[in-house]
Amino acid sequence: MKKHFIEDFKNLVGLTDTTDLAVLKVDRKVTRDGKPYLDFTLRDRTGEIGAKVWSDNINDTEECRVGDVVTVEFEVREYRGSLELTLRSVKKLSEFDPDDFIPVPHGIQIDELKLELARRIDSIRDFDLRKLIDAFFDDDAFYTAYTNAPAGMYIHHDYRHGLLQHTLEILRILDSITEIYPDINRDLITTGALLHDVGKIRELKFSMSGTTEYTREGQLMGHIALGVLMIESKLPDDFPVATREKLLHIVLAHQGKREMGSPVLPATREALAVYYADMASTFMNIAEHERLRGLRSKDESAEFSDYNRHLGNAMLLDD
Amino acid sequence: MKKHFIEDFKNLVGLTDTTDLAVLKVDRKVTRDGKPYLDFTLRDRTGEIGAKVWSDNINDTEECRVGDVVTVEFEVREYRGSLELTLRSVKKLSEFDPDDFIPVPHGIQIDELKLELARRIDSIRDFDLRKLIDAFFDDDAFYTAYTNAPAGMYIHHDYRHGLLQHTLEILRILDSITEIYPDINRDLITTGALLHDVGKIRELKFSMSGTTEYTREGQLMGHIALGVLMIESKLPDDFPVATREKLLHIVLAHQGKREMGSPVLPATREALAVYYADMASTFMNIAEHERLRGLRSKDESAEFSDYNRHLGNAMLLDD
Amino acid sequence: MKKHFIEDFKNLVGLTDTTDLAVLKVDRKVTRDGKPYLDFTLRDRTGEIGAKVWSDNINDTEECRVGDVVTVEFEVREYRGSLELTLRSVKKLSEFDPDDFIPVPHGIQIDELKLELARRIDSIRDFDLRKLIDAFFDDDAFYTAYTNAPAGMYIHHDYRHGLLQHTLEILRILDSITEIYPDINRDLITTGALLHDVGKIRELKFSMSGTTEYTREGQLMGHIALGVLMIESKLPDDFPVATREKLLHIVLAHQGKREMGSPVLPATREALAVYYADMASTFMNIAEHERLRGLRSKDESAEFSDYNRHLGNAMLLDD
Amino acid sequence: MKKHFIEDFKNLVGLTDTTDLAVLKVDRKVTRDGKPYLDFTLRDRTGEIGAKVWSDNINDTEECRVGDVVTVEFEVREYRGSLELTLRSVKKLSEFDPDDFIPVPHGIQIDELKLELARRIDSIRDFDLRKLIDAFFDDDAFYTAYTNAPAGMYIHHDYRHGLLQHTLEILRILDSITEIYPDINRDLITTGALLHDVGKIRELKFSMSGTTEYTREGQLMGHIALGVLMIESKLPDDFPVATREKLLHIVLAHQGKREMGSPVLPATREALAVYYADMASTFMNIAEHERLRGLRSKDESAEFSDYNRHLGNAMLLDD
Amino acid sequence: MKKHFIEDFKNLVGLTDTTDLAVLKVDRKVTRDGKPYLDFTLRDRTGEIGAKVWSDNINDTEECRVGDVVTVEFEVREYRGSLELTLRSVKKLSEFDPDDFIPVPHGIQIDELKLELARRIDSIRDFDLRKLIDAFFDDDAFYTAYTNAPAGMYIHHDYRHGLLQHTLEILRILDSITEIYPDINRDLITTGALLHDVGKIRELKFSMSGTTEYTREGQLMGHIALGVLMIESKLPDDFPVATREKLLHIVLAHQGKREMGSPVLPATREALAVYYADMASTFMNIAEHERLRGLRSKDESAEFSDYNRHLGNAMLLDD
Amino acid sequence: MKKHFIEDFKNLVGLTDTTDLAVLKVDRKVTRDGKPYLDFTLRDRTGEIGAKVWSDNINDTEECRVGDVVTVEFEVREYRGSLELTLRSVKKLSEFDPDDFIPVPHGIQIDELKLELARRIDSIRDFDLRKLIDAFFDDDAFYTAYTNAPAGMYIHHDYRHGLLQHTLEILRILDSITEIYPDINRDLITTGALLHDVGKIRELKFSMSGTTEYTREGQLMGHIALGVLMIESKLPDDFPVATREKLLHIVLAHQGKREMGSPVLPATREALAVYYADMASTFMNIAEHERLRGLRSKDESAEFSDYNRHLGNAMLLDD
Repeated sequence: MKKHFIEDFKNLVGLTDTTDLAVLKVDRKVTRDGKPYLDFTLRDRTGEIGAKVWSDNINDTEECRVGDVVTVEFEVREYRGSLELTLRSVKKLSEFDPDDFIPVPHGIQIDELKLELARRIDSIRDFDLRKLIDAFFDDDAFYTAYTNAPAGMYIHHDYRHGLLQHTLEILRILDSITEIYPDINRDLITTGALLHDVGKIRELKFSMSGTTEYTREGQLMGHIALGVLMIESKLPDDFPVATREKLLHIVLAHQGKREMGSPVLPATREALAVYYADMASTFMNIAEHERLRGLRSKDESAEFSDYNRHLGNAMLLDD
Repeated sequence: MKKHFIEDFKNLVGLTDTTDLAVLKVDRKVTRDGKPYLDFTLRDRTGEIGAKVWSDNINDTEECRVGDVVTVEFEVREYRGSLELTLRSVKKLSEFDPDDFIPVPHGIQIDELKLELARRIDSIRDFDLRKLIDAFFDDDAFYTAYTNAPAGMYIHHDYRHGLLQHTLEILRILDSITEIYPDINRDLITTGALLHDVGKIRELKFSMSGTTEYTREGQLMGHIALGVLMIESKLPDDFPVATREKLLHIVLAHQGKREMGSPVLPATREALAVYYADMASTFMNIAEHERLRGLRSKDESAEFSDYNRHLGNAMLLDD
Repeated sequence: MKKHFIEDFKNLVGLTDTTDLAVLKVDRKVTRDGKPYLDFTLRDRTGEIGAKVWSDNINDTEECRVGDVVTVEFEVREYRGSLELTLRSVKKLSEFDPDDFIPVPHGIQIDELKLELARRIDSIRDFDLRKLIDAFFDDDAFYTAYTNAPAGMYIHHDYRHGLLQHTLEILRILDSITEIYPDINRDLITTGALLHDVGKIRELKFSMSGTTEYTREGQLMGHIALGVLMIESKLPDDFPVATREKLLHIVLAHQGKREMGSPVLPATREALAVYYADMASTFMNIAEHERLRGLRSKDESAEFSDYNRHLGNAMLLDD
Repeated sequence: MKKHFIEDFKNLVGLTDTTDLAVLKVDRKVTRDGKPYLDFTLRDRTGEIGAKVWSDNINDTEECRVGDVVTVEFEVREYRGSLELTLRSVKKLSEFDPDDFIPVPHGIQIDELKLELARRIDSIRDFDLRKLIDAFFDDDAFYTAYTNAPAGMYIHHDYRHGLLQHTLEILRILDSITEIYPDINRDLITTGALLHDVGKIRELKFSMSGTTEYTREGQLMGHIALGVLMIESKLPDDFPVATREKLLHIVLAHQGKREMGSPVLPATREALAVYYADMASTFMNIAEHERLRGLRSKDESAEFSDYNRHLGNAMLLDD
Repeated sequence: MKKHFIEDFKNLVGLTDTTDLAVLKVDRKVTRDGKPYLDFTLRDRTGEIGAKVWSDNINDTEECRVGDVVTVEFEVREYRGSLELTLRSVKKLSEFDPDDFIPVPHGIQIDELKLELARRIDSIRDFDLRKLIDAFFDDDAFYTAYTNAPAGMYIHHDYRHGLLQHTLEILRILDSITEIYPDINRDLITTGALLHDVGKIRELKFSMSGTTEYTREGQLMGHIALGVLMIESKLPDDFPVATREKLLHIVLAHQGKREMGSPVLPATREALAVYYADMASTFMNIAEHERLRGLRSKDESAEFSDYNRHLGNAMLLDD
Repeated sequence: MKKHFIEDFKNLVGLTDTTDLAVLKVDRKVTRDGKPYLDFTLRDRTGEIGAKVWSDNINDTEECRVGDVVTVEFEVREYRGSLELTLRSVKKLSEFDPDDFIPVPHGIQIDELKLELARRIDSIRDFDLRKLIDAFFDDDAFYTAYTNAPAGMYIHHDYRHGLLQHTLEILRILDSITEIYPDINRDLITTGALLHDVGKIRELKFSMSGTTEYTREGQLMGHIALGVLMIESKLPDDFPVATREKLLHIVLAHQGKREMGSPVLPATREALAVYYADMASTFMNIAEHERLRGLRSKDESAEFSDYNRHLGNAMLLDD
């Protein structure tokens, strides 16, 4: 069980104790006088902190890498105005409670999100599309990954369950568009929306300790190509050709513009609708988090958040 | 009563008769041998046709301009492979049935649109915003203009009732966004959406004969500045300052980017939401009309519409 | 056997005879007086010509579409300053000599190109890559398509064998780059270059009568995604993961920039080298064809070709 | 009376005394050991300096905010190589001499600028335009704001009287353009230039202590829309329609391009001329200040200033 | 002496006579039945007209090329609604009055422009700069070319004396800028402005018959590089190094941005000032000519000119 | 002889001794208490280090500037976690071994590069081009500068001999292009490639102590204009006009796009080929150095280098 949280260390300068922390970065370095030491960045749900293992204690440090959770013996020090840990020993931990390490934005109810996902899946009545979707979601490993993954590394919905939340927002916006164009293929658009970002599961590695990294194939291929390959590998031989083309087209075109990474532009109403719903969900999320960050960090008289480069503006705080 | 429609002239070469047509263009020109003549483009609900008044009949032609409806004595001629009318006389008509001249896309039910508009207005429960909206819509001239205007000259919703249809589509998409962010100010967003394009009523001149032109102030000031001035002129002195700023901000920021004509970028969730809903309504409409145009004009084996430069692609026809 | 070529019709006004021509376009239209007629554009190796089947002869016209070769009974007419054919009958032809219909740029020696292709394939000594390449090129249908296809519809190498010529040019330029960086993986870069545009075989439909069209899947998915799927489908389960990623990366990144259609940017030396070699081959070809076109069509004193929008300039003719 | 200037503190380490300083920033923070303190940035005409009020003295600190001038009891300390003040008490001051706090670039003669402004106003002989201009400048509060405001926060003419200096520069450049085009409407162009940036008076809040901030309405509406509303509110009902449109057009179009914040592009010679004169005044000012900054801060052998991102280059210093 | 002007031919259909015309284009072509003919475009001060020499008269046609003035025996014909000349004979003419062929915009007073040029040259009191300027303008061939040349082919000041008029406008605008920055080097800026476009004299070939073409070196090197080489070739060995660099810098940087063809960006106040003055002169001229064209060609009720792509807008006509 | 290298100082804290170092930066500063001191950055082949001369020792410091090599009496100190030298005396040194100061990337064999350069020069058989090339390379000062210069300050081939290496890479890539287009003018393309960057020798100042700076004329004129002037000054009067134009065109157009600094775009095959070969050499070099930097500085498990903004991506390390 985790004994201390990072946010509490500021009142604990000088304390020597143990606790569990996740590894966000680790580098082997050399001091000016040539001695090796380890330079860590550690995190939990409440923040990040630097930590050092000096040469004398290196032998008490188990090999570990980004994403591992470790139990450390520490002393809290203040060094040049910042808190820092000096570590006596570091041991890898195989069991821990992810909730200690991963921040979840206030208000995400994962059980409700899962129920809504199930309802969305159940709404697909086209036999071929439903079989395809089931082939994805009946796979437990996929289901776990999909319902836990963030939608990205920094930009939007970049937290646990973010991908699922983002996908369901898109589907809700698509409801209003299919109301306007009732002859749009609802099952196709639902399947396309559910799978549009599916490649992110292989593009990003999201650990239970809350760290997100690009994978090697993610950086070399991108989530759009990965998503297309994942879907193709699940398509049965007798899947209708026209439906296959339209579905892959939604995935390929969902960034909407070539400079955003889509190799083709939307040519169907379903693909256009997913693109605009994706944009609305994405940028509303960016705006909301910038606004909330401003409300948390700014003094009361502040009227605007910091400038956000994705929005090209600061957000009004009393909105 | 209108006797002939333009689409029927192809079977009537040689016919001499009268009918009512709208003036789309008229120029006074001179033949190679120095004689004056009038060169018209006329239209009705079914199409456009060229027409000439030669010098002998100029005296039987009443002064008229773009947007007028006229009764003409005509002869149908074929000249270099195109149909053309030779006009004997042209008389201005003050009463006519707009439905003879303005094409309305299949499926627009103006009565239902007006009912939904009424419901949307009635949903505004904030006293100040409701009084402002009523100040607009209780004005009969404004109401008639608003419910008849197109949303633009060529690009999207460019037909009678187009502005109203476009606005209601935006509101429907906003419903889904306010579901996601329940603390968004619903009355403000509804008022902003209803008024975001209100400047188009002065930017464009839409005649009952179906022609649309930029007005002088429209070309010099643009619909965003005109909209802001129209709203400002209706705001009572005691209108809450913060609400005024947020409302005008929605109108100013609704194009979303400076290069699209918005002098400021969205800084509130309401303004962002109106921007994304506007985009989705706009581009889905462009896509749908390109697709319908392709289905009408292409031969059966064609799989794609023409290239549409706003979409950057052609639309799949069997979508 | 083909009796007449289009370039000779200018001396044959009034002639009635038969010949074989390829269908480039065909539309069913209606005359001003309501009668149906067929409006053809026909071509052979020497040019294009318009042709009409009037209503009386429609029954003597077999159903045909773009890419078919037909035997026509024609009369050569001059109409408003242009030559045109009036067709008495149109019959589909199943056997014909492609060389009558497809222009091949002066100097392409297909046998030599095929030999060089064989040498390039044979140079691959990595077992996995060689098996993959063989899986493609040992398939006769693929080999025929690959060695006949153009590299595009209009822009560069847009003629029979163009794809092969383009690919071999890239490989020659890559030779000079691998001389500079001898530790680049030669087999990987050769395989990547040979397959980088393989998706064009499904993106484009190139008929033996010389016409090129986008396919439905080509327009919806693009040649990059199609190429990735084609390669993936031929990869055996035991193909080395790292090689697979690097090979697919070359294909995905070969357009070099997102706005050119690559969803990821080059991250390996092999991918960068293929990108720059592809560019050099592409633009040198565009320039050479603009220059040759200028030399053919301009009068002797002309110093420059027409402006070419891909190059952003006109080409000097006496270069 | 102000006793010490910031530039002198470097020779006064250890001194304890009082002086008057303006508040540029103030934040309430917490030390590592949990005690509250106040973190100030203070400025006067000669520079900026950090200052802290530790928890023991917080009770001797009056509530104050950005733009206030305060009398402080201080001790000058050196901390990690920088000077810093430790404050014993902070008291708000209601009367002070702005010249102690606001740097005015060498060479601005405000009295001469005001005389030239008066001459420019007096040159307007069109009755309606003159009445409008008088309605602005006869208002003392407006006159004071206009003649003191900077033209911006950082970019150009960003100092006291900057707006007036910038406007008069534009008018001088316009003189040369109206010499070239003598039939340009001189009164309109003068009025347009005088009012083109009038919205900045509400977009920015410029305090007598020398600080500039965006206002809430400035950030939400921008100076162009604010300027249009300010002018509109002063236009009498009988103001000529055509002149109103042309005047508002100058204001709306004066940034010249949509991406620079103008919702419409110049469509009159007057608007074009104001745009180009505005650009010339703006960028010459940026260049001159970068050059002067380089001359002040660089060592003698330096030939170029720092790179300036607005100019895309460094300025030659011996120019 | 010229007998007929092109604008009068419309009343002279059928006339057979002789007159003098300039050759704007000439191509040797072949009729559909294989006979050679010559296809001319001819022009004079009042317009352009097509003309043909049929095979029977080719022997009565002297070899001629673009820019020549010829005496033709003609018959005025109307063909498919356009006027055209049939030519019986074509003889080259070595002496003619340029004023018959070159349109000069209303209001250019070349003698006054030359006087102002002389005054500007005379104002240069720096010994080295004055000697350089004299080296240019004391050369009669240069002086004639400079005072007759247009400033471009289509875009601005594209008529006889246009380069001189444009240069003097720039100098007038620079006067106002040097008033604002009195320490700017006046002689340098005057020399720079006089020579900034000097390369256009070699980039363009402007014939006394009014035609303008790019030269071979113009198209290969551009007027900026040509201007630098022209100046360099006139610089004496003892010309001060710093002045030479600043002068060439003005020429190199005067387009202001790389994408406009300047290989370096302005780094001196003189170069910046020339750039902004050049822009103002250029775009005011484009706007004025679009406006005048609109006033001439539009009917009285028209409020705006055609859209001008350089301005990104149409011009208000009653401005 | 150099006694100590910078990379060894970390084990020598406290040592007092002398060694030779190159001056990378030097500024005269004032301490908080008003005393002057000198603030140096010094470098050698192995790295950089800060150094200070306090006021007491200023008299023992010879005047020196960037690029000088100096002998210093030093003490190694550690200050706030970084190493720093305190200097007792500084003396300028006129003779030193450049290899002590300039890092040369592993694997550059300057003798082989020079041999290849000689072979390339010798391959030029066109008399005029060969005489021109000899006029450059027979000049010893030029030859030394050319064979030692870097190709740039930071971006690519930014080390001793970099310009030569880059040029020879281009020539090798051009070999493959001239194989494809055998009628390209080989002598012209070789001459163009050898001289395309010749202006960099005057644009940049590269000292034997390893520092690179822009020169004044480099910053004001750029290497393209300087190169054109250098070539022009060596062209004999009887040099063939057409060859001169094509050669200067290669130099002017070699950046390929206006926004990259080429005032004209390639209009000959030779110019296009040099442009694409230049790009390939440039970006492959950038990629290779980013990759090598990553391999050196990253820990073993790292899969990618840092993001490189010129490439728009990170490089795969196990490539």
